[in-house]
Amino acid sequence: MSSIFGNNIKVSVFGESHGPAIGVTIDGIPAGKTIDMDKLMSFLARRAPGNSKYSTRRKEPDRPEFLSGIRDGVTEGSPITAIIRNLDSHSGDYSGINDIPRPGHADFTAHVKHHGYEDYRGGGHSSGRLTAPLCIAGGICRQLLEEKGIQIKGSIDEIHGNSEDPLGEIDRVLGENDSVGGIVKCIATGVPAGIGDPIFDGAENRIAACVFGIPAVKGIEFGNGFGAARLKGSENNDSFQYEDGEIRTATNNHGGILGGITSGMPLEFRVAFKPTPSIGIVQDSVSLSKEENVKLTIRGRHDPCIVPRAVPCVEAACAIALYDMIKETE
Amino acid sequence: MSSIFGNNIKVSVFGESHGPAIGVTIDGIPAGKTIDMDKLMSFLARRAPGNSKYSTRRKEPDRPEFLSGIRDGVTEGSPITAIIRNLDSHSGDYSGINDIPRPGHADFTAHVKHHGYEDYRGGGHSSGRLTAPLCIAGGICRQLLEEKGIQIKGSIDEIHGNSEDPLGEIDRVLGENDSVGGIVKCIATGVPAGIGDPIFDGAENRIAACVFGIPAVKGIEFGNGFGAARLKGSENNDSFQYEDGEIRTATNNHGGILGGITSGMPLEFRVAFKPTPSIGIVQDSVSLSKEENVKLTIRGRHDPCIVPRAVPCVEAACAIALYDMIKETE
Amino acid sequence: MSSIFGNNIKVSVFGESHGPAIGVTIDGIPAGKTIDMDKLMSFLARRAPGNSKYSTRRKEPDRPEFLSGIRDGVTEGSPITAIIRNLDSHSGDYSGINDIPRPGHADFTAHVKHHGYEDYRGGGHSSGRLTAPLCIAGGICRQLLEEKGIQIKGSIDEIHGNSEDPLGEIDRVLGENDSVGGIVKCIATGVPAGIGDPIFDGAENRIAACVFGIPAVKGIEFGNGFGAARLKGSENNDSFQYEDGEIRTATNNHGGILGGITSGMPLEFRVAFKPTPSIGIVQDSVSLSKEENVKLTIRGRHDPCIVPRAVPCVEAACAIALYDMIKETE
Amino acid sequence: MSSIFGNNIKVSVFGESHGPAIGVTIDGIPAGKTIDMDKLMSFLARRAPGNSKYSTRRKEPDRPEFLSGIRDGVTEGSPITAIIRNLDSHSGDYSGINDIPRPGHADFTAHVKHHGYEDYRGGGHSSGRLTAPLCIAGGICRQLLEEKGIQIKGSIDEIHGNSEDPLGEIDRVLGENDSVGGIVKCIATGVPAGIGDPIFDGAENRIAACVFGIPAVKGIEFGNGFGAARLKGSENNDSFQYEDGEIRTATNNHGGILGGITSGMPLEFRVAFKPTPSIGIVQDSVSLSKEENVKLTIRGRHDPCIVPRAVPCVEAACAIALYDMIKETE
Repeated sequence: MSSIFGNNIKVSVFGESHGPAIGVTIDGIPAGKTIDMDKLMSFLARRAPGNSKYSTRRKEPDRPEFLSGIRDGVTEGSPITAIIRNLDSHSGDYSGINDIPRPGHADFTAHVKHHGYEDYRGGGHSSGRLTAPLCIAGGICRQLLEEKGIQIKGSIDEIHGNSEDPLGEIDRVLGENDSVGGIVKCIATGVPAGIGDPIFDGAENRIAACVFGIPAVKGIEFGNGFGAARLKGSENNDSFQYEDGEIRTATNNHGGILGGITSGMPLEFRVAFKPTPSIGIVQDSVSLSKEENVKLTIRGRHDPCIVPRAVPCVEAACAIALYDMIKETE
Repeated sequence: MSSIFGNNIKVSVFGESHGPAIGVTIDGIPAGKTIDMDKLMSFLARRAPGNSKYSTRRKEPDRPEFLSGIRDGVTEGSPITAIIRNLDSHSGDYSGINDIPRPGHADFTAHVKHHGYEDYRGGGHSSGRLTAPLCIAGGICRQLLEEKGIQIKGSIDEIHGNSEDPLGEIDRVLGENDSVGGIVKCIATGVPAGIGDPIFDGAENRIAACVFGIPAVKGIEFGNGFGAARLKGSENNDSFQYEDGEIRTATNNHGGILGGITSGMPLEFRVAFKPTPSIGIVQDSVSLSKEENVKLTIRGRHDPCIVPRAVPCVEAACAIALYDMIKETE
Repeated sequence: MSSIFGNNIKVSVFGESHGPAIGVTIDGIPAGKTIDMDKLMSFLARRAPGNSKYSTRRKEPDRPEFLSGIRDGVTEGSPITAIIRNLDSHSGDYSGINDIPRPGHADFTAHVKHHGYEDYRGGGHSSGRLTAPLCIAGGICRQLLEEKGIQIKGSIDEIHGNSEDPLGEIDRVLGENDSVGGIVKCIATGVPAGIGDPIFDGAENRIAACVFGIPAVKGIEFGNGFGAARLKGSENNDSFQYEDGEIRTATNNHGGILGGITSGMPLEFRVAFKPTPSIGIVQDSVSLSKEENVKLTIRGRHDPCIVPRAVPCVEAACAIALYDMIKETE
Repeated sequence: MSSIFGNNIKVSVFGESHGPAIGVTIDGIPAGKTIDMDKLMSFLARRAPGNSKYSTRRKEPDRPEFLSGIRDGVTEGSPITAIIRNLDSHSGDYSGINDIPRPGHADFTAHVKHHGYEDYRGGGHSSGRLTAPLCIAGGICRQLLEEKGIQIKGSIDEIHGNSEDPLGEIDRVLGENDSVGGIVKCIATGVPAGIGDPIFDGAENRIAACVFGIPAVKGIEFGNGFGAARLKGSENNDSFQYEDGEIRTATNNHGGILGGITSGMPLEFRVAFKPTPSIGIVQDSVSLSKEENVKLTIRGRHDPCIVPRAVPCVEAACAIALYDMIKETE
């Protein structure tokens, strides 16, 4: 039912792409933590549109206003709410789309769910813009984790199957009115062993539950992931060994998680992003009002590939899930 | 923290592999539902060890005893609890392993988490045996979903990379003291459109959060999944079209879920299982008491491949997650 | 940990009395519901300060701005967020109080909890002002319940022990620099039978959990409540009888709830409010910095009795808890 | 919906009075805690029927069997499940009552909720017997709190309005086929300041939510409670003062909780129990099958007053709620 994540912190995302504002409430951050606002803005900037030749030309300052819970950069212990006003929205780009669902988007499914009352403009509450508040929460959690020596680093693993020249793939598709997808890799180092639980609240369960909150995610794998499915036990098991008095594994096929619990080795996972559905070519769809098949051409400003902007989103989702688990052990 | 899953129903799994019993409590099943117990037993039998030449030779009748919530096969509306007594456990197989963590298992991570107080025998609360209570809950949910015309069907997609002769791969590794992993595919048909939510409570989030509760799962993908990451938008988008007055998609690359919400098309996903870690070859590990590197040879009865037995577990996890979401719309 | 209430809807309150804004997010309201905004404003006005001679002279327009989830007065199915800007705050009234906790207030306890990082001004996140966002959520829920024929009506039961002339008690204390408490009664009619659960999610549990979210509440009782503790079973039991084909009870000592589940009779409860702690007389307190006992005189604008303004707050809390339970049965 | 309580621990109660067993699962108790089983049995004995001339003559050994999570009296960190078999149940006492709801009981309301599928025998899942598993969980939490210097002590405040000779009231009603109610007082000492949250997760909210899980509870008040509603601020406020370098209050009208957060002063509350509904006199009810008014005489073994047995139940509920809050600060 809800747009709320977490057990020990609660991250609640709200807003529609073309509504007055989008935002997030984070409940459960302890008091007295200093949040570096400049660092947070830099983190958000990595996600913002209009910042590179590869992303949509829609410009949003995306500068959040903090309404509660932080004063002079220090957390007060009460819920932290930040909002971002939607200023540069071209509602006109979306006229008529309430009637014709865009292939690959949530238009149709949200329409069925909300009986036509949903805000369809720009994807409404399903829009990729909602990753901005996700990144505010994630950016805060990242800083809290860094205090504990935990670093989270995302990167582009491949775009359109190309790992050697991923950005070249975006260039190639730029003029085709088409789009490409890709894979983001994320590594968290310094995560202590013993975090997470077996069964339903394991590290994989929680990170996956948060990461799938990013639009366009269609898969996630930890360590060798789907590759492990093709190995033998003798190839995939990681031996334990003492190194400098610490127990580590000789290899890290398990990606830092065993039985849902972290091992202390780098926590590694990969996230699959489908190609952005908004493409300029003519597509087949339906008219809901006329109940017949129609052609659709999407206008407006759209990313040919959201993977570069998705990297900080994946870091954010990882940070939220990790901090939620770590807080339990504080 | 917890071994509890769900928003509208709560599935709570408890027990250790070599403790007195394992079990599950399911809270939130409405009253008056008839549960076909024979059908439930057949479902559980697909998972049970000792039923085929490919699985471990440990025999457990695995017949649950219902302690509450069901009378004469009809639900009473109060929490349903079922337990399975652990009868055929050879604790002797595990002597000394508390000191030497088995590679690929949760021994080490659970040890760190529980400071040595965990029940390590047979994997304790992290054991694959805990999929039995998961399947009890899932088996009940499957029946409730079938009443609504929803069918869930799992199958072996491949073992050790082999999709044409998956069971042959198990044969080949049987004598090698080694193991293989594989991929389970799951399809749910008849799922109405409009189920799930954007952001954190989408169908992918919830199914993933439940599926990762099955030991040995290292990845999950929906629809084209990681394959979508290698396609263009023009290749991956699914066109909408009217068929017999219903809106369907011409292709199903999205796997039945768009923006976290079901579309009415078959819900399809694949789950990656790593090869079972318990293999008979000599492995490298550590002695926790002596703080030095040692060799380890695992004895006892172990599956060379748990994928065939994992198929009903994946169906169960899917059923629990789906019923949890569907119940909200009842 | 959290300022979030609910199972089937989630009401999340945020903000500090003297921060930029206070607000609420309500997640889980179905799409397509029309909210009468004028009616909502009238409901909020009953709570607002500055509206009668009995309440504090602080004036706040208290007009919420809806940031998401509602468009043209119709719910979209996504989370609804409303904020209220804090405009008429006199921070100067509170200078120095961070050092001297006010008796009866949360200053000291919040200080211990948040190590001095809390926003103490005006009570911060513990302030009575946070009942404004509670009333926004409650006002919306009240309208949704009215659609189902459920009416919630609060009233002043007594002030300072006086049930015949409650408002006269406030007059008498107005010039004394003192305050009085009182009891609010609340009755919900039209509640169908069968709502709520035994054990932890009963109607009493949930209403109490929400009502205690209103500052100054120190007790709650349902039906005869503490009076039932002084009766015999023959006096307190309510007989069942058919009336016009419906099962009702001859008396309503149970207050509409039996075994945590509603009976269809009017749901009745009473809430005890302690006298507002901010009084003008000299009080004994401590200086946290000097670690010594000091005298304290509170200046500024304070209600001699918040009970009249608390009536809509109790209705709001009741509405939130009831709608949360009712939604499960929709 | 659910019979689950808690944020940081989860207590899940299951079972029907005349089903195979009743029980509880407690998830979230850390590993390595020693539970004194004899002490736990003594605690449970205070609640058990058949132990005094005042309680029902039904005898249940009420000795729990631990199925998981504890080995040799030491917690393993995984969910703890305990069950109690129902051995001495006289189902015959309840024949026909499914058709005639007993006044004051949950028969009617549970019947409406579960459409007649509920187990009505002995009150089913709404039965007072379900306080046995509540006390197992509470008894464990009490011991964990004692380790931290927190003591919880309940007592009979009054029975039938009589505080000087409460047990005499039970004697007087014993022969009348009637029953009496009463008030239980509970004091928790050694609770550190700073526990609980403002708004929805305050100490009052959480204790109330747990305490109302005990059948027959109709009211709860903290500190002066309803008495505070009759005082002036000058009478009810508690002054702060230093005593031996600690901040305490001169009086404890606030009952140890201010703004939902504990102050360090003794946490005090009172719980109102209605008289047990099962009385032997002739009562008016209805026949559900014949849809007409009928007379009802309840046979069998029933407590004329459950207040003495309720004292440990109140301690248990307090312990669960307190430990749940305290665990967050560990």
